[in-house]
Amino acid sequence: MKNIYIIGTGLIGGSLALNLKAVKPKAVIHGIDHNEGHLTEALNLGLIHKKAEVEDIERADLVLLSIPVDATLNLLPRILDLLPPQGLVVDMGSTKASICQVADAHPKRAQFLANHPIAGTEFSGPKAAFVDLFKNKTNIICDLDKTEPKRSKEMIEIFKAMGMSIRYMDAVEHDKHIAYVSHLSHISSFMLGKTVIDKEKNELNIFDMAGSGFESTVRLAKSSPDMWAPIFEQNKDNVIETLNEYIQNLNHFKALMESDDFESVRNEMRSINHIKTILKGIS
Amino acid sequence: MKNIYIIGTGLIGGSLALNLKAVKPKAVIHGIDHNEGHLTEALNLGLIHKKAEVEDIERADLVLLSIPVDATLNLLPRILDLLPPQGLVVDMGSTKASICQVADAHPKRAQFLANHPIAGTEFSGPKAAFVDLFKNKTNIICDLDKTEPKRSKEMIEIFKAMGMSIRYMDAVEHDKHIAYVSHLSHISSFMLGKTVIDKEKNELNIFDMAGSGFESTVRLAKSSPDMWAPIFEQNKDNVIETLNEYIQNLNHFKALMESDDFESVRNEMRSINHIKTILKGIS
Repeated sequence: MKNIYIIGTGLIGGSLALNLKAVKPKAVIHGIDHNEGHLTEALNLGLIHKKAEVEDIERADLVLLSIPVDATLNLLPRILDLLPPQGLVVDMGSTKASICQVADAHPKRAQFLANHPIAGTEFSGPKAAFVDLFKNKTNIICDLDKTEPKRSKEMIEIFKAMGMSIRYMDAVEHDKHIAYVSHLSHISSFMLGKTVIDKEKNELNIFDMAGSGFESTVRLAKSSPDMWAPIFEQNKDNVIETLNEYIQNLNHFKALMESDDFESVRNEMRSINHIKTILKGIS
Repeated sequence: MKNIYIIGTGLIGGSLALNLKAVKPKAVIHGIDHNEGHLTEALNLGLIHKKAEVEDIERADLVLLSIPVDATLNLLPRILDLLPPQGLVVDMGSTKASICQVADAHPKRAQFLANHPIAGTEFSGPKAAFVDLFKNKTNIICDLDKTEPKRSKEMIEIFKAMGMSIRYMDAVEHDKHIAYVSHLSHISSFMLGKTVIDKEKNELNIFDMAGSGFESTVRLAKSSPDMWAPIFEQNKDNVIETLNEYIQNLNHFKALMESDDFESVRNEMRSINHIKTILKGIS
């Protein structure tokens, strides 16, 4: 593995670059980004070795796609067209079903690995990249049987060397689950931010009165709209289902309050406290 | 100020005790708690100097109430009854209007200070206490004009010595604002936890697939139901108003998705990103 191309040199791509430098010290890490400023920044920060263009992918051993999922959908067929016989393309997107559908239609399907590292922060751009982003995180690989085994095996070893544990899943199943444990929490956070901003015209009130609780609950509302709007679009049906259930739960909680049934309010909260155990790691 | 009584020796009371030991080194810190285990723990952890009973308050110079707001509502008249002429009672509750209403009806109203430190964690009990809990936080004092000035002044100096900045507010206004910036985020977090737990019967999925984003958004769902159910009860009308607006915003977001208007989805998120600036401190 000599020539690695990372398309999208932001938080995810930059952090991948830092890890690949350590795991594959002999490889040359090429960066590709339509944002020329980001690309220069990635070079200056020492994330990548060289700038490159999409056309250079005809010399690639490995291509990593760390761009918004709408861009992945558009670009993937062209990348596969350009890819030489020894190459592998791996995407990092938060949706898998639509991307796999596009890949499935391509003659070089076996040279694509559908992948989703459960890692990120609310920040974006090359400056947000750091080497430990993937450490002790889960990496989900979808529809593994459609990728040529020798290629996928090598890539999986790289992910393990980055400190990740690997789970395997069907692409359609992935999108259903991830709507609950990731996409919904982004919307709940954005809408919380909206509700408070709309109400508190005096922003000093928000700053002064918001404790660390509010801050952590609203943290995801800092996330990049260019990253997240396409995720919601591609996972529309699943996300709408989670929203329906979330809104239903909120309405139920409100109804309990309206009927002064605070014993049930307390019991609801008690059973949800179980999330403590889940997040600690299931025993 | 010689005899200080802290009723409720958990996260808030224990952290107050640690601060008072530093700020008033000559004072004796008495702990009162209906949970005998907590009280012994608070003594063993060195949070308080001595165990005490409610009746001992007839010797108090200062009484701090750090118990659930329903307990404060019940106990406050009795504390004021027992309080000697030099004493002051200060509460730490997350609601202020109902508590002030009870205080207003008492002949010793001038010996009560209505107070809410915007500080806390999702943990509870004496073990959760730490000295820096209040550092650089906001402390809201309500209806200051109803407290005897010499007593309130001394208490405010203590809060400042603990590293807090003080804001003054009307009790009814406090409850309106705090419903948005604190109470709502607790409900949004609990309901997010519920939605995910209900769906993901296989808890391993939650643990593996939930990134740090989910973890921070759901953090408040670990909070104590015994603390929070009474807060929602006392601030019922305001909290229901925030819930209505939150649910309306979620429905609007869902409608945008249903009509495939992802340009508006993106624009919504962009304007909510403004929360970044607010949380950094308004420039």
